[in-house]
Amino acid sequence: MKEFVIKGDIIYLENKNEIKTYKNHYLVVKDGYCQGVFPHILEEYKDYVELDYSNKLVIPGFFDLHVHASQYQYRGTSMDLELIDWLNKHAFIEEAKYESIEYAEKSYSMFVDELKNGFTTRAAIFATIHKDATMKLMDLLEKSGIVSYVGLVLMNRNSPDYLRLKDDKDTLKMMEEYILESKKYQNTFPIITPRFTPSCTKELMKGLGELRKKYNVTVQSHIDENPSELIWVKELEPECKNYTETYSRFGLYGGDHHCIMAHCIYNNDEEIETLKNNKIFVAHCPESNMNVTSGIAPIYKYLDNGINVGLGSDVAGGSSLSLIRAARQAIQLSKMYYRYVDQNARQLNVMDAFYMLTLGGGEFFGKVGSFNKGYEFDALVIDDSKIPSLLDFSLLERLERFIYLGDESMLVSKFVKGEKII
Amino acid sequence: MKEFVIKGDIIYLENKNEIKTYKNHYLVVKDGYCQGVFPHILEEYKDYVELDYSNKLVIPGFFDLHVHASQYQYRGTSMDLELIDWLNKHAFIEEAKYESIEYAEKSYSMFVDELKNGFTTRAAIFATIHKDATMKLMDLLEKSGIVSYVGLVLMNRNSPDYLRLKDDKDTLKMMEEYILESKKYQNTFPIITPRFTPSCTKELMKGLGELRKKYNVTVQSHIDENPSELIWVKELEPECKNYTETYSRFGLYGGDHHCIMAHCIYNNDEEIETLKNNKIFVAHCPESNMNVTSGIAPIYKYLDNGINVGLGSDVAGGSSLSLIRAARQAIQLSKMYYRYVDQNARQLNVMDAFYMLTLGGGEFFGKVGSFNKGYEFDALVIDDSKIPSLLDFSLLERLERFIYLGDESMLVSKFVKGEKII
Repeated sequence: MKEFVIKGDIIYLENKNEIKTYKNHYLVVKDGYCQGVFPHILEEYKDYVELDYSNKLVIPGFFDLHVHASQYQYRGTSMDLELIDWLNKHAFIEEAKYESIEYAEKSYSMFVDELKNGFTTRAAIFATIHKDATMKLMDLLEKSGIVSYVGLVLMNRNSPDYLRLKDDKDTLKMMEEYILESKKYQNTFPIITPRFTPSCTKELMKGLGELRKKYNVTVQSHIDENPSELIWVKELEPECKNYTETYSRFGLYGGDHHCIMAHCIYNNDEEIETLKNNKIFVAHCPESNMNVTSGIAPIYKYLDNGINVGLGSDVAGGSSLSLIRAARQAIQLSKMYYRYVDQNARQLNVMDAFYMLTLGGGEFFGKVGSFNKGYEFDALVIDDSKIPSLLDFSLLERLERFIYLGDESMLVSKFVKGEKII
Repeated sequence: MKEFVIKGDIIYLENKNEIKTYKNHYLVVKDGYCQGVFPHILEEYKDYVELDYSNKLVIPGFFDLHVHASQYQYRGTSMDLELIDWLNKHAFIEEAKYESIEYAEKSYSMFVDELKNGFTTRAAIFATIHKDATMKLMDLLEKSGIVSYVGLVLMNRNSPDYLRLKDDKDTLKMMEEYILESKKYQNTFPIITPRFTPSCTKELMKGLGELRKKYNVTVQSHIDENPSELIWVKELEPECKNYTETYSRFGLYGGDHHCIMAHCIYNNDEEIETLKNNKIFVAHCPESNMNVTSGIAPIYKYLDNGINVGLGSDVAGGSSLSLIRAARQAIQLSKMYYRYVDQNARQLNVMDAFYMLTLGGGEFFGKVGSFNKGYEFDALVIDDSKIPSLLDFSLLERLERFIYLGDESMLVSKFVKGEKII
């Protein structure tokens, strides 16, 4: 199905500040790209297949900018610890299992299955230090129709013996192989993934920076997440003026293909400026930030300064792959930030949440996250009649109700790059 | 079905600090009361009907201590305002519609239907100022099998003209009729419901206190919810030393049948002592407290001081009737309280959440919320295989996963007072 027209109640952001709502309109897709939204089917599209989603919401796909596939199995447990303890007592023990390709295949199949059947159309994913298991995850994602960046996770210090890459030369060779082997995929891409500064020595970071330069591969990592982590980074890298510099000094920050930095809770003003100048994508992970007692990221500052922000489920610091939950949590947490951190802060609203869900995260993947002409067609068809009411709501109100009360049972169809995958 | 045995994976609190978990055990119910949990069926119960819920979780019902049935229709919208503005611009306009008994019947039918099909087995509910509509809600609840207290909401000041009771004598007469007429119900009870201090004059409060004394009816209201509300109450009732006294001076606080006070975010130390001494049930409503930017209640103080705490959905300050959402939000918000308000505060955990969901709220209704011998049998049967994993979890871990990832699609059966209603 290369050319088709979707009929429905269409909502998308033209840009961060302008929302478009079209009741009972027609959205035209050709070769994977949006052609426009019209009140009736134009003559030139009259031979296109028509998909009738009348009275359903048609919105762009959601983009998960931060998720650990290898922590999927124990999501929703062990939420009684702060970040560093939680890593040592739970995350690392589970991740070690991915040395077994059999375990990886079973586990990643379940992860990909849930991702495919949910709202996410594209994702930036952390795997583990194991190359074979990571390539298995990439195989499964490629087959699913989801578009993804998948990180072979790098850790060569402050990690248990069973989960530590011991020889930097071998590690960089493995990274190079993974980058080259990934060329066989259409929709699945490598991404350089130093776990976070405490896990990677300067020497390894330097090597990764060189690899990045050689292959023009993008980067994802964690930054400024938790107070105890910040103290630790300062101890580990005293010569750096801030956390940002631990990445940027080796070319693992900014650059042509924008990087993703997850969390960004405690970035100081200088770091915020650096975020902006380097066109970093902030992955905001509200559930995880609550669960491991990290804090509340000042997202309004980023949005109002033109910094890119998308949402991350951060499974398993977050329990749920569902970004609709992250969207409402982002609004709710911003209200607690206002109440307890800064009464000059702007509270986030439904428009901000919809932006982070769609265009804000989507643009990491290119012209994605809107139905503007020329954008790749990632879309969700939502049956919001499952949130019954006697009232007659506007399209914007229906969007708000979906953000607060929506779940995956309302997903009727899902499109990625113009392909219908559900 | 008066006598039956349920087979399943049984979890309940014996008391606030002791949890019982029984894999593959038998829970015996007779005439609506729990008889005990056994590893096999005893001789004396061998003729009882056996309900096989093997591998399912069997847990006590959940108790919604604070919900506005009359705000159900617009749940999940209009979340862009703080409490007082939100009341004036949305809540009051919707509540006025319940002057029409036809609207009330249609709307309340939908509300009761969702309540019946969810996790809640008993609830304390706010209706509106309209007696006929309120009695209609009570009729519908009585038929549903849910146990409830339903408040005819009282407002005689600071309310729009169309939603203000104008003659106290008429109002008290209406209240008396509602109390007397409610005697026809088995499972549906009246509850004196001054909306909150800003809505009720001293004279009305005094009359309500006398009515309470005459009929021994319990009380529900709001207290210490939002900073701007606190300032307003201080202006309105300058002679009271705190918000609590605006109720207690007229006998609308404490007493034989314990009262419910919703929110309790900004109670000072003296008020916390008064909460305890009067055996008040605190209705903790975390979603609403975020949505209308109220703040975070110091729930650990209440729990650790032996104060009763249950959860409230507070629809439509909260968007969702699902208390499992409130349970995880309670834990998550307590972590933000620790981070931003008081680093000496105790962070809530899964046990606290399970307590508030079951025994903490249940005891408002009597010996309810546990499977201890002699407790009324309110129970949920949960199919947690819908949260798939390769890992082998303990019953406590399964409970934690349900709290973080559970939803109503996992509800297999539901019992209230020993009656199977789903």
